[in-house]
Amino acid sequence: MMNDVKEIALRAREASKVLAVASTELKNNALLEMADALRKNSDYILQENKKDLEVGRKEGLSNALMDRLMLNSKRVMEMAEGLEQVVSLRDPIGEITDGWVLPNGLIVEKVRVPLGVIGIIYEARPNVTVDSAGLCLKSGNAVILRGSSSALSSNRALTKVIRDAVEKAGLPPDVVCLVDQPGREAAVELMRLHGLIDVLIPRGGEGLIKTVVENSTVPVIETGVGNCHIYVDEGADLEMALNIIINAKTQRPGVCNACEKLLVNSNVAQEFLPSVYRELKERGVEIRACERTREIIPEAKEATEEDWYREYLDLILAVKIVDNIEEAINHINKYGSKHSDAIITNDYTRSRIFCEAVDSAAVYVNASTRFTDGGQFGMGAEIGISTQKLHARGPMSLPELTSTKFVIRGNGQIRE
Amino acid sequence: MMNDVKEIALRAREASKVLAVASTELKNNALLEMADALRKNSDYILQENKKDLEVGRKEGLSNALMDRLMLNSKRVMEMAEGLEQVVSLRDPIGEITDGWVLPNGLIVEKVRVPLGVIGIIYEARPNVTVDSAGLCLKSGNAVILRGSSSALSSNRALTKVIRDAVEKAGLPPDVVCLVDQPGREAAVELMRLHGLIDVLIPRGGEGLIKTVVENSTVPVIETGVGNCHIYVDEGADLEMALNIIINAKTQRPGVCNACEKLLVNSNVAQEFLPSVYRELKERGVEIRACERTREIIPEAKEATEEDWYREYLDLILAVKIVDNIEEAINHINKYGSKHSDAIITNDYTRSRIFCEAVDSAAVYVNASTRFTDGGQFGMGAEIGISTQKLHARGPMSLPELTSTKFVIRGNGQIRE
Repeated sequence: MMNDVKEIALRAREASKVLAVASTELKNNALLEMADALRKNSDYILQENKKDLEVGRKEGLSNALMDRLMLNSKRVMEMAEGLEQVVSLRDPIGEITDGWVLPNGLIVEKVRVPLGVIGIIYEARPNVTVDSAGLCLKSGNAVILRGSSSALSSNRALTKVIRDAVEKAGLPPDVVCLVDQPGREAAVELMRLHGLIDVLIPRGGEGLIKTVVENSTVPVIETGVGNCHIYVDEGADLEMALNIIINAKTQRPGVCNACEKLLVNSNVAQEFLPSVYRELKERGVEIRACERTREIIPEAKEATEEDWYREYLDLILAVKIVDNIEEAINHINKYGSKHSDAIITNDYTRSRIFCEAVDSAAVYVNASTRFTDGGQFGMGAEIGISTQKLHARGPMSLPELTSTKFVIRGNGQIRE
Repeated sequence: MMNDVKEIALRAREASKVLAVASTELKNNALLEMADALRKNSDYILQENKKDLEVGRKEGLSNALMDRLMLNSKRVMEMAEGLEQVVSLRDPIGEITDGWVLPNGLIVEKVRVPLGVIGIIYEARPNVTVDSAGLCLKSGNAVILRGSSSALSSNRALTKVIRDAVEKAGLPPDVVCLVDQPGREAAVELMRLHGLIDVLIPRGGEGLIKTVVENSTVPVIETGVGNCHIYVDEGADLEMALNIIINAKTQRPGVCNACEKLLVNSNVAQEFLPSVYRELKERGVEIRACERTREIIPEAKEATEEDWYREYLDLILAVKIVDNIEEAINHINKYGSKHSDAIITNDYTRSRIFCEAVDSAAVYVNASTRFTDGGQFGMGAEIGISTQKLHARGPMSLPELTSTKFVIRGNGQIRE
């Protein structure tokens, strides 16, 4: 079985060489074929998805997980539309990102090239299969997909349909590969293919990401965990603050850019917190609070030390009173996950200090943390949100799936 | 001992927060203090270096290694000058690399920020200690240095002098830390400090780099191994080709951008190879050759399969005859190390094909591979040459030691 995974990677590597030099037109045609094939094979895909749903029901998957696993014809159409949207994105490959002439006459250019082979290890949602295939293909990268066992039949069906379409368009089908061997071994083998796979992107919960970071010899881009904070400063527009908190907490609580923690300056806490409590309670949000907050909202449950580290992904908000911006910044840098954090303020100096000192991928002044998203940022589709500092940080779209090379043109230059 | 390494990293992390928001002026002052202190403490440094040299002599280090280890007052002055040169480089921190306004009025900026804490694991040369400290400091990063045991006294002396100077300038001395515990354990512990160290850069031989890649949970930037090729195409200017080969092979054979392999088109081999052999023999270069080459140069030793993979770092050149550019490209992509590779040609189409298809950090047309170097490329000083695709590729200078963050300014925007 070990050899099977390596064999798949070798085939993906070969295919990546063809894809790396394919024209934008050929890649776009492949994407359109893929979209077309998804629509035409919707029944087949849904029938295979049913198998996963049946197994999931027997194994007692939660409703939330069953919903993430479930496909219907609308969702298949959305996948197809997603691919068509990728067609409209600018091809990053070949872009000259920098260039200059040296005193000796050498022309130096820095040119965008594909990374090569990208591995994606992800959890239940089958749409990740199609999204990843589309973004990797457009950016000239072969992709090796490793979905969860709960979506096995769906992922097999989707990759079969996609691979046939890619081949029809004139590209090697191995630019999209699925590692569908059951068990943990195959995933670990994938993580050890240093030299064959250029980067691994885990998409899923904290446990999955930790496993990949600990086991991978292939470079990893960490994505997603979001323990996001909003700090309400002294003198802030409290109505704006309340609107932003409600939005960041409740508009979609299960995602990584939702707000999980509220820090409130002690000089506005007495005035502000009762309305926060009232408005969030109405929307079904549970409040966990520090001691000082509980003096103002005695009904709130006590927050433990562990709460400050947690990403709830649920209708829960932990609230803490702080005495100044330094305390807020230190708290965020200590307990946060370096994803998205906001200050609500009307003080110019403190807005600067916050943006400079908070060490997160996205730092906001007077806006909801929910905007951290490739689509919302106007970057087109997104393959994940990097919370590490190497290579890419924040939402990743097509340029983040590329590397560069130096191309140097001379007429006989030698080094003195 | 384990705790000592972690303790050092925690102190570096705290110091990095101060350094991250330090002004360019303060950082430049610290660099000048460091240069000044090196000059003033030259005697002390040389005396400590002698201890390493004595141990090295007893342990029978090779002359080459002894030379790399050895400091003299000229070399200490050069280190000081190197730091002064870093002062003149532009501070990358705070640079706004991109920015736009969204339809909802949010102002999005992508701002350069330090990586945080950088770990450098390196072999004998003590100048790496000073170079790395200077480049990391200027780019706002704390650095944790792990030199080889053979340079222990030198590195302790250099970091002591540097740390005192940094403190005198008003920055925390822990922005430059040395892990000087003997034994492999301390280095491995360093590689496992995911979350405390943002990136590890190994500088040294293949064995060192492999160990770091295999053991590190901290993201790694691979540097340096260079199995560089020159392909001489049909119709090339053979005099130019010969000059470039002599330069790339002999100007400094022990470095990563020196040429290790020569591929010659079969249509020019008969004419070209005898002069290559003659000129290189005169300069003490040993030729290892493929079967077909040996028909033209019978005196040449036979090259084994293993030769095609090797980085000699010595006066050895392996030569192979190929029938066309495709064979040359395939050979380079299969056996090369993705560092620097050149084509000597006068054919426009083939120059394009070579640049596009050769998957290396630097691809040359009609120039010596020896130019792959931050200084030669006009990028200022260099901390290493990345041969991986993630984050940075090719020579790395100050911008390559940074990350970015998104700063988003609004006036109450919430997500619909």
